[in-house]
Amino acid sequence: MPHIDLHNDTPGIRGLLEFRPETGRPLMELVEVLLRGPSTLARGERELIASYVSTGNQCDFCARSHGAFAAAQLPDGTALVDQVREDLDSAPVSAKLKALLRIADAVRRDGRAVTPRDVTEARAAGASELEIHDTVLIAAAFCMLNRYVDGLAAVTPDDPEAYAKMAERIVARGYLTD
Amino acid sequence: MPHIDLHNDTPGIRGLLEFRPETGRPLMELVEVLLRGPSTLARGERELIASYVSTGNQCDFCARSHGAFAAAQLPDGTALVDQVREDLDSAPVSAKLKALLRIADAVRRDGRAVTPRDVTEARAAGASELEIHDTVLIAAAFCMLNRYVDGLAAVTPDDPEAYAKMAERIVARGYLTD
Repeated sequence: MPHIDLHNDTPGIRGLLEFRPETGRPLMELVEVLLRGPSTLARGERELIASYVSTGNQCDFCARSHGAFAAAQLPDGTALVDQVREDLDSAPVSAKLKALLRIADAVRRDGRAVTPRDVTEARAAGASELEIHDTVLIAAAFCMLNRYVDGLAAVTPDDPEAYAKMAERIVARGYLTD
Repeated sequence: MPHIDLHNDTPGIRGLLEFRPETGRPLMELVEVLLRGPSTLARGERELIASYVSTGNQCDFCARSHGAFAAAQLPDGTALVDQVREDLDSAPVSAKLKALLRIADAVRRDGRAVTPRDVTEARAAGASELEIHDTVLIAAAFCMLNRYVDGLAAVTPDDPEAYAKMAERIVARGYLTD
């Protein structure tokens, strides 16, 4: 049960966004730009970063939902998402994406944990300045979203079908629609 | 020196916002609503929450800038900001603000660290559902902003005068102007 009375029973972050639309709007605009806006990183790759950070933060709702959104938009689907979560080093993703996921994990732990070497390695693997920027901001944004969801104890559905339905909606329509 | 080439030498978060205005805009819209929009929490109180979280995360730029913004908008100014940072329990703030700052610190550490008891205590001290919500989201948002600034190694000015000037601008014009 959520810590506060949301005046709705919508599960997950959407219950929070409905409770306070004045903050919900810019939050979803940020997520839409970062995860679905024009980018040289595929949508599935960006959702993978979001799901990897949420898994590290042990935010079940975000890890499950963005894991489903990543799986729905990556060629190897759920298997790849699971491999990245279990062991990034051996996961079959490009050297560039691996280097970006390492930066994302450093940001998750503490912004100051990102080293010049992490950035040099990402650049050497082909990452652009903008891709590095967006990776840092996606990771940082999920450190906010994970804490928002868990700090208010938003409802986390158990049923895998709930996440499959969310994935259908997000892939088709994005974060800005209701 | 920032980890990436920002194509500008604006210090702090503004250099990052200029580099990527597509994400900068919703970020600042969120901060404007949370820290300066209509609320039963004073602007100085909300900046105090932001500065307290940033101090806990050891993000020098955000701790110094939002500390200055809080001091400029609170009756007891810098002395109060310092007392809250040094020892919240003995700081001369209301029981309600103290309870909200405790919730903010729990969110900072981990969203799951917020307990029903923390929320009950804030409510007993007079906090509304919306005040509790906004405190959680301010704390969560600064967990993002601190990581964004430090994860890209944005320039942190040494000169206290730089923060005093920022405070003048923010108090007078807010976060949405350039």
